[in-house]
Amino acid sequence: MAKTEQTAENTQLKDIIAHAKEYGFVYPSSEIYDGLQAVYDYGAYGVELKNNLKRLWWETMTRLNENIVGIDAAIFMHPTTWKASGHVDSFNDPMIDNKDSKKRYRADVLVEEHAAKLEKEGQVEKAKSLTAALARLLEAEDFAAVRELIVNEGIKCPISGTSNWTEVRQFNLMFSTQVGSVAEDASTIYLRPETAQGIFVNFLNVQKTARMKVPFGIAQIGKAFRNEIVARQFIFRMREFEQMEMQFFVRPGSELDWYKEWAATRMQWHKALGIPEEKLRRHDHEKLAHYANAAMDIEYEFPFGFKEVEGIHSRTDFDLKSHQEYSKKKQQYFDPEINQNYIPYVIETSIGADRLFLMTLCNAYVDEQSEEKQRTYLRLHPAIAPVKAAILPLVKKDGLPEKAREIVDLLKYDFNIIYEEAASIGKRYTRQDLIGTPFCIAVDHQTLEDNMVTIRHRDTTEQERVPIAELHSRLTEACSFRRIFEKL
Amino acid sequence: MAKTEQTAENTQLKDIIAHAKEYGFVYPSSEIYDGLQAVYDYGAYGVELKNNLKRLWWETMTRLNENIVGIDAAIFMHPTTWKASGHVDSFNDPMIDNKDSKKRYRADVLVEEHAAKLEKEGQVEKAKSLTAALARLLEAEDFAAVRELIVNEGIKCPISGTSNWTEVRQFNLMFSTQVGSVAEDASTIYLRPETAQGIFVNFLNVQKTARMKVPFGIAQIGKAFRNEIVARQFIFRMREFEQMEMQFFVRPGSELDWYKEWAATRMQWHKALGIPEEKLRRHDHEKLAHYANAAMDIEYEFPFGFKEVEGIHSRTDFDLKSHQEYSKKKQQYFDPEINQNYIPYVIETSIGADRLFLMTLCNAYVDEQSEEKQRTYLRLHPAIAPVKAAILPLVKKDGLPEKAREIVDLLKYDFNIIYEEAASIGKRYTRQDLIGTPFCIAVDHQTLEDNMVTIRHRDTTEQERVPIAELHSRLTEACSFRRIFEKL
Repeated sequence: MAKTEQTAENTQLKDIIAHAKEYGFVYPSSEIYDGLQAVYDYGAYGVELKNNLKRLWWETMTRLNENIVGIDAAIFMHPTTWKASGHVDSFNDPMIDNKDSKKRYRADVLVEEHAAKLEKEGQVEKAKSLTAALARLLEAEDFAAVRELIVNEGIKCPISGTSNWTEVRQFNLMFSTQVGSVAEDASTIYLRPETAQGIFVNFLNVQKTARMKVPFGIAQIGKAFRNEIVARQFIFRMREFEQMEMQFFVRPGSELDWYKEWAATRMQWHKALGIPEEKLRRHDHEKLAHYANAAMDIEYEFPFGFKEVEGIHSRTDFDLKSHQEYSKKKQQYFDPEINQNYIPYVIETSIGADRLFLMTLCNAYVDEQSEEKQRTYLRLHPAIAPVKAAILPLVKKDGLPEKAREIVDLLKYDFNIIYEEAASIGKRYTRQDLIGTPFCIAVDHQTLEDNMVTIRHRDTTEQERVPIAELHSRLTEACSFRRIFEKL
Repeated sequence: MAKTEQTAENTQLKDIIAHAKEYGFVYPSSEIYDGLQAVYDYGAYGVELKNNLKRLWWETMTRLNENIVGIDAAIFMHPTTWKASGHVDSFNDPMIDNKDSKKRYRADVLVEEHAAKLEKEGQVEKAKSLTAALARLLEAEDFAAVRELIVNEGIKCPISGTSNWTEVRQFNLMFSTQVGSVAEDASTIYLRPETAQGIFVNFLNVQKTARMKVPFGIAQIGKAFRNEIVARQFIFRMREFEQMEMQFFVRPGSELDWYKEWAATRMQWHKALGIPEEKLRRHDHEKLAHYANAAMDIEYEFPFGFKEVEGIHSRTDFDLKSHQEYSKKKQQYFDPEINQNYIPYVIETSIGADRLFLMTLCNAYVDEQSEEKQRTYLRLHPAIAPVKAAILPLVKKDGLPEKAREIVDLLKYDFNIIYEEAASIGKRYTRQDLIGTPFCIAVDHQTLEDNMVTIRHRDTTEQERVPIAELHSRLTEACSFRRIFEKL
């Protein structure tokens, strides 16, 4: 990427972060205490947008698919869960400390950044061989050799400027806490680093109580936590984040067909949401996690490049099998069609609600600054926009506010509506543009006579005259998920 | 309470717990690992019921009140938040250990249980004076004297049977964890023990970005965590739970009027939800928390007695003032009407989503076991029922399944629908009764000719013949929140 481009794109991300804070979408967490690194809060419009996205995903999964139901498992789980899943033993990052600055770094990131620097300086071959060596050593978990690489390359701490490094040590990314009192019955539990395991340990509970037949899926939305050392890019990588995961249980041997199907289905979902095709990319994993026999990401072109928004993974029977081993409880399904017991294979679709939010925001953010036109607005799909309509009396007198409030009462039970009477109508339109409200409904003196209002459309700024009696059905038509569902 | 009554009521709670597990509402967390104490997971129908309750509360707050908006603050907050709120210093339970059994108890609970025993044995006066003494000592934080009380009363550990007690020590109920790497930049943070503080630290952010004018409110739904030593009564008191809190900011001096208003409004909400008046009770606090100048609970008569479902508290300016002091950032509002700066006073409405769920379940659970009739069903309000309608072809042939699926497609975008073709129609009705589905829609041979179906109503078991074309509007009418909102 050329330097100027990079700067432009960094500027765009900065603009979006500033916009998100200024207009009530996302604030740094505990900001009055100068924030908490890599943790964010959603504001008045942010929470509505996020809730709409979550509900859209939930209803896509559980309503459009007769064979998918939801659950809501707790964040706290029995600690053996994380032995079985492999997180206790292998959910680690290799860390190294500089003894002079006392700063800690991810060892692999230090090497990668050094390689990137070499590449920039024209030493492309050197950079390549370094990256390859790093991959080999990490694969072999030879951390002493990773340290040697860092020392031999003369990689220095950016703070102290020295190469006075400690050993490389594995650092587990799970947050832990003590449950129970401090007496001997207290025990260490973890904040779940992924929601998937809450589905796996409930596989038989759900299968039996909701009487599901393979193939079937279980969907879940919930918080997960990772003690990321290098957390960055706004809400893209946070320590506390929200996942929307669906685990689809299938007959062994059929998993790769289902994998293909879900990959296509999920890609289509992003397009139905209004993400342009050229901003989406499929990235097939070459190196597979220990539990997978196929894996891919759906990537979106963020201002900082193409990055994963959603992952689709063929997880085999790894998780259920491992839980069976650790719990000593059979995790089998009897398939009446083939008269066989088996541990189902699993296809997972896993999307970060916060990343989906960020993608949506980046995609919606329009900053027109030409000579004729200067306007910033959020081009959000009406079905997910935080506020559906603003009801605006032209003036604050002559009975217009009363008439406008009648309209609010007509719509407020079914739509998120704003009423605003202060400032000029132009300023009020601008304000709604900034939070992405698709329809501004102006009430003027004429309205008192003909019961018609002016709808001003956000994206085109076009205005049309519409009877009040039609407003409810107009909003229903425009804002219902149905329009998105029909594209799936 | 008479002994037989108590047994009957314990039986009822047991029945409800068993029903919740058997029919996919609530499972013990990580059940395959024998569960995690005081933590539960919501199953396929439980999550739908809980989500409906959460959405009803959210829309009641944010849509019916023009001056209330929502937020979604993170669980992780800057640790100083909990210094300012008083939780680090005073969110404690007094604990005592028995040296022989190595078991830990809440000292106050030991004394209370002992007093209850004395009362049962007829020593009413003794019991009363003991309880009064305990209250005095706790108030004075004289824990040495609490221990003396335990020893002098000869209270024994139920496990070891001895009085070999340790000192009484304060035990903080907040869960803590380490954020950052293990180097010196790591710091202790807490899992929030209440969601309220996420609102207080964002008070000015929300006020400015959503341009709110006092009086206004901020609503939030989210998880909170307390390391309860004595956690019990199913999902009534859990270590991980979900709160729905609304903080309403008012002009100082007007708080007690607003307190009255919110107390009435919230009580009406529970009635609108279908809770009978005689099962609800208002409990005014005599002893107030350090931050409050008025407080009350809305109690519901659970099988284990009248217990708090929701609290309404007049929190004064305690929280904002304290955050101002700790953050050194002014938490003031300029009130243009009276041309004054002030720290607003706060009225809080705080309801546990899990308790609301349990109340709803207890209230809905009907177990008819007379000689003529044997039927168990959940009499849930259609607006919150997990499944709105089951579409049931009378037989699995003759084109009835195809016709039934056409009806599913007509409804599924807007309602949570079940399609079921296995088993007799009677068995399928029973099944829907058990999960509280208000409408069963049967498709028979006649349907193919006249496009009419039979609606079977859950509560009355009455059947009526209805045109397919009317189903959507019938369900909309019955299942929309509007019917509840109109009672508020």
